[in-house]
Amino acid sequence: MNLVLLFPEDLLAPDRARLAGRRLQHVREVHRAALGQELAVGLLDGNMGRGRVLRLDEEALELELALAQAPPPKLPLTLVIAVPRPKVLNRVVAAAASLGAARIVLLNAWKVEKAYWASPKMKPENLRQQMILGLEQAKDTVLPELRLARLFRPFVEDELPGLLEGGLGLMAHPGSGTPAPPIGATPVTLAIGPEGGWIEAEVQSLLKAGLQPLDLGPRILRTETALAALVGKLF
Amino acid sequence: MNLVLLFPEDLLAPDRARLAGRRLQHVREVHRAALGQELAVGLLDGNMGRGRVLRLDEEALELELALAQAPPPKLPLTLVIAVPRPKVLNRVVAAAASLGAARIVLLNAWKVEKAYWASPKMKPENLRQQMILGLEQAKDTVLPELRLARLFRPFVEDELPGLLEGGLGLMAHPGSGTPAPPIGATPVTLAIGPEGGWIEAEVQSLLKAGLQPLDLGPRILRTETALAALVGKLF
Repeated sequence: MNLVLLFPEDLLAPDRARLAGRRLQHVREVHRAALGQELAVGLLDGNMGRGRVLRLDEEALELELALAQAPPPKLPLTLVIAVPRPKVLNRVVAAAASLGAARIVLLNAWKVEKAYWASPKMKPENLRQQMILGLEQAKDTVLPELRLARLFRPFVEDELPGLLEGGLGLMAHPGSGTPAPPIGATPVTLAIGPEGGWIEAEVQSLLKAGLQPLDLGPRILRTETALAALVGKLF
Repeated sequence: MNLVLLFPEDLLAPDRARLAGRRLQHVREVHRAALGQELAVGLLDGNMGRGRVLRLDEEALELELALAQAPPPKLPLTLVIAVPRPKVLNRVVAAAASLGAARIVLLNAWKVEKAYWASPKMKPENLRQQMILGLEQAKDTVLPELRLARLFRPFVEDELPGLLEGGLGLMAHPGSGTPAPPIGATPVTLAIGPEGGWIEAEVQSLLKAGLQPLDLGPRILRTETALAALVGKLF
């Protein structure tokens, strides 16, 4: 937690916050903050800055806030990710948020097992929590927009072309032989397939919707590793 | 496991292998391979290719091998990573191997807790196992060279300058304002600090050894995410 993220309900006044629970515990046990010490804090969807510790005990952490700094700009990036295994879902979503993606779409695909969608980890409150952990890691306050697209074809055929307007659409696709194009400040939509890959019909749908294939090289990377490598390459 | 990695002791003949244990279990339960089916296989530090299933039961998997393909070339990359928390060490090492780093150095730093070094996860056999998992993920057969540098100064002052000869040395350093240089085919040594960062004396030592600072932007990323983003950016 490199930033203590505050929520509107934490505010006692515009310059005063009181919190408990996970964040209190973290500040006590990991930061081991002293009275008067300043912590990096930020308000959800708002400014970042410093919070001076006014009270820290078993019950609450109280902070005096000075929030004058804007959060880092989001990358103009929409990530379209085939739903990963529950075991790795949390890390993928937190990594996507920490990297600064403006929008995350979790998409169905042939090789996404139905059980993945039924996992408790796919509940909106868990996904939001993972994005919050990503923001706290990266020092950001702005949640990515999250979309769950349970049906491949309606999303890819009806919505994806609209998302691509005015920007560039890319699809990680091993063996395509196409290196990453220079993108400058162009908004990018980037699709990352399931373990085992997209099936050919899905590749055709994604191409038809306007995505271009992008070859990361001969190595097959885990979703979270591929994600970070692609963001590093493009931005 | 996108590639079944074989070891010399698995070979019954140059074109025949028999294996058991973790790999047998994975092929039975995840690949659910049938007799006659071909699996992607590779020989440690050797060629890759196909293995046709001759036998698959509770006791053993036997494969007929055709290994004609060279593994993907390693990246000319030495990663110098401050030892991460045991909880994330396995993922960091596997990710580094899957990304194709030629050499991995795990280095001590002021903010590396002593307990990290004492963790069973730091044992050579575990670290080797994590690199093997990374190779199986990425479809590669060549283990990175692994170094444990328990003392910061002797490594940085006496050995690092030699590692940098003929190549470029970079140090991930937030706030330095220096974007990634174009590297072409230059060998790169890349240092990534501990959670909490290098202390100033360490930064000075690393600069003196010949590393240049490199700014990944305002976001603070987890070691494994930063690693992948940097490799994506540079190569």
